[in-house]
Amino acid sequence: MKPVNIGICGLGTVGSGTFNVLQRNHHEITARAGREIRVTRVATRHANHPLCDLSGVEVESDIFAVARAADVDIVVELIGGYDTAKALILEAIANGKHVVTANKALIAEHGNEIFAAAEKANVSVCYEAAVAGGIPIIKIMREGLAANRIAWLAGIINGTGNYILTEMRDKGRSFDDALAEAQALGYAEADPTFDVEGIDACHKLVILASLAFGIPLQFDKAFTEGIRDIASEDVVHAEALGYRIKHLGIARRTDEGIELRVHPTLIPERRLIANVDGVMNAVLIKSDAVGPTLHYGPGAGSEPTASSVIADIIDIARFIDVDSSIRIPALAFHPGHIDALPVLPITEVKTAYYMRMSVQDKTGVLSMVASILSDNGVSIESMVQKPPAEGADYVTLIIMTNVVKEKTLQKALSEIEALSSVLGSITRIRVESLK
Amino acid sequence: MKPVNIGICGLGTVGSGTFNVLQRNHHEITARAGREIRVTRVATRHANHPLCDLSGVEVESDIFAVARAADVDIVVELIGGYDTAKALILEAIANGKHVVTANKALIAEHGNEIFAAAEKANVSVCYEAAVAGGIPIIKIMREGLAANRIAWLAGIINGTGNYILTEMRDKGRSFDDALAEAQALGYAEADPTFDVEGIDACHKLVILASLAFGIPLQFDKAFTEGIRDIASEDVVHAEALGYRIKHLGIARRTDEGIELRVHPTLIPERRLIANVDGVMNAVLIKSDAVGPTLHYGPGAGSEPTASSVIADIIDIARFIDVDSSIRIPALAFHPGHIDALPVLPITEVKTAYYMRMSVQDKTGVLSMVASILSDNGVSIESMVQKPPAEGADYVTLIIMTNVVKEKTLQKALSEIEALSSVLGSITRIRVESLK
Repeated sequence: MKPVNIGICGLGTVGSGTFNVLQRNHHEITARAGREIRVTRVATRHANHPLCDLSGVEVESDIFAVARAADVDIVVELIGGYDTAKALILEAIANGKHVVTANKALIAEHGNEIFAAAEKANVSVCYEAAVAGGIPIIKIMREGLAANRIAWLAGIINGTGNYILTEMRDKGRSFDDALAEAQALGYAEADPTFDVEGIDACHKLVILASLAFGIPLQFDKAFTEGIRDIASEDVVHAEALGYRIKHLGIARRTDEGIELRVHPTLIPERRLIANVDGVMNAVLIKSDAVGPTLHYGPGAGSEPTASSVIADIIDIARFIDVDSSIRIPALAFHPGHIDALPVLPITEVKTAYYMRMSVQDKTGVLSMVASILSDNGVSIESMVQKPPAEGADYVTLIIMTNVVKEKTLQKALSEIEALSSVLGSITRIRVESLK
Repeated sequence: MKPVNIGICGLGTVGSGTFNVLQRNHHEITARAGREIRVTRVATRHANHPLCDLSGVEVESDIFAVARAADVDIVVELIGGYDTAKALILEAIANGKHVVTANKALIAEHGNEIFAAAEKANVSVCYEAAVAGGIPIIKIMREGLAANRIAWLAGIINGTGNYILTEMRDKGRSFDDALAEAQALGYAEADPTFDVEGIDACHKLVILASLAFGIPLQFDKAFTEGIRDIASEDVVHAEALGYRIKHLGIARRTDEGIELRVHPTLIPERRLIANVDGVMNAVLIKSDAVGPTLHYGPGAGSEPTASSVIADIIDIARFIDVDSSIRIPALAFHPGHIDALPVLPITEVKTAYYMRMSVQDKTGVLSMVASILSDNGVSIESMVQKPPAEGADYVTLIIMTNVVKEKTLQKALSEIEALSSVLGSITRIRVESLK
């Protein structure tokens, strides 16, 4: 069969990895794909690239030239960002090219429009590398679990955040300390907002939720809470209670609608996903037929991400001569079957909670706190009162609740915080059993 | 698009699960596949099936009638065993039907012949359910990791064995005790040989190795050692050293050839796979681009296995009108690219070892043991001598070695066992770092 021609736009971390793995594993890839896959064009600002041997490849400075080139079948968008990347992808589609991208932000926020354009033009847009780096999670959910009605999924889908939380637990570091370390190691950007505030994880979660439930991409409706306020003492208390704190993206189907939320979460330490440490990613999926499956691997990095980019290239190459109407739909469900299920506001979501508060060390405080909870219908699963520190006149109270609606808990919390014997604000972290 | 018609042969555990999940998730499955998938015929001895509502379905007593029926596009072989199952699949292929099977033993031992027949007849034979039950590991390796040169894989791919080893560790049970429990719970057969001797795991390993390395299925060349001789005290000693004992299937590419082996293995307790407990399965794959990925889920059971059977059905249904020359090859690599790399005999395999021996409690014994190891070029990584039990005149010696060739270790072991101060035979269990 005739070779499939690739044009790569952007030779940064992922682009150079993609270029190099395609060259290094040429034999393996050809043997699997059944046809040669060759890079005919790249667009980069480095004609003398420090990591890639570009001899025999047409080097462009204009990415749009790649999107229009006659000798390119698949355009690989690895420039990142929104506007230019979107324009590039739409230009490639308009020119009848298939597209592979690793751009999670773009897919999460503009994917509906991009997929509609691709559908109309009879080409594929693939994005395996956009979620959980080297883990082939898009394929797993879209094809491997295709027999199932998926109930929920929970993922550690930001390596930077997981590295910080792992350091806090393993070495007793503060958040700021662990973040500085992550920045020194190159795991975190100088401006870490996207990672530590959960925006990056939320982009990936929104994509996974669409694949799981057959809903449109709805980034603007997802709830996001970062890990900046996790204190070392919460990590220690959680540990003592048999839990780990992880920054999870959670999507769940309920009778009322879809939950779509990223936040720090206490999970039982015996769950496999509680033991996913450092920069690694993992996604746990609960389905009706198979039950739980978990998929683990590196969530970022040059060659791990390239592995997913190339898997997409091979998938497209195998079926490039086949009419796209029988290809696998971009969001797992055929366009006519996408349901606009409502996304629940966080106030309507039900979870259990961990709460930590400082209260005056005197008789009756505990009973006031307990009765506010009880009056609001919040059941206490367990409570621990720590002895006061030497010379202190207040004590730390740790309360684990049963599952309750968020707005119910918020109301109870503000009543408790209004008590004069409760000092400062109450820390609360959601708890999931993941059963 | 017109519906795809399914004929299911065998309505036992997996067959009834497949039938029922196809019915229950009909909406989901149609939305993903883009066309209706309907069961037109089943072959079963129960016209009044206790678990399946067969109204509207043609019920046959002759499985071969299903393989020849004009209104069947895909034959699903779920009768198990060798001869009849093989004849059924070949009959289906001869009649131009695609085939889905969960039969690991048949694929591992006769897959080369079956795939060649399918290739010739231009039909697909899919077997996702043959390895690791509900984990879509065939798809992950064949497509998800297609960019990679795979270095090695290690799997917990027999739930019964893992249940027994988990019970031994968690509850301090003996092997016999844990096996009896597994039998009472229905996890183990009355004759547990296939599971505890590693034959079932070996079938699955042989399939995974072919997918990983592009080699033919070579069941007769694989090495298998069961878990029957694992003593409770080895579980305890391993734990004290920071290890867990798991029954692993391991396939590794080396410069000398392919390692293909199933045996009890000590693995560091911090590895995620060391924490896969009970009847669950997991496969860890080390690839050159992505690095390590791990995939976890139920390895058996009615609906978990059905999930994989149906994923195969959907895959075939999507591309049923496409010429099979551009379908994904059965063993991941296109037939012209299958390499007959040699499989190493176990004596040539290199691993580290855990050894436990009873030696007389007197001066000089330790030094004799150490010098035999040293003379044979076996390095000691660590050694622990347990104090003698009350009144006993012998002590237990635990030795961990560095990586050494198996035949070298065997020679050293027989020299040590010949010492008059060494009592009985030496227990040795292989050790893998899985890094």
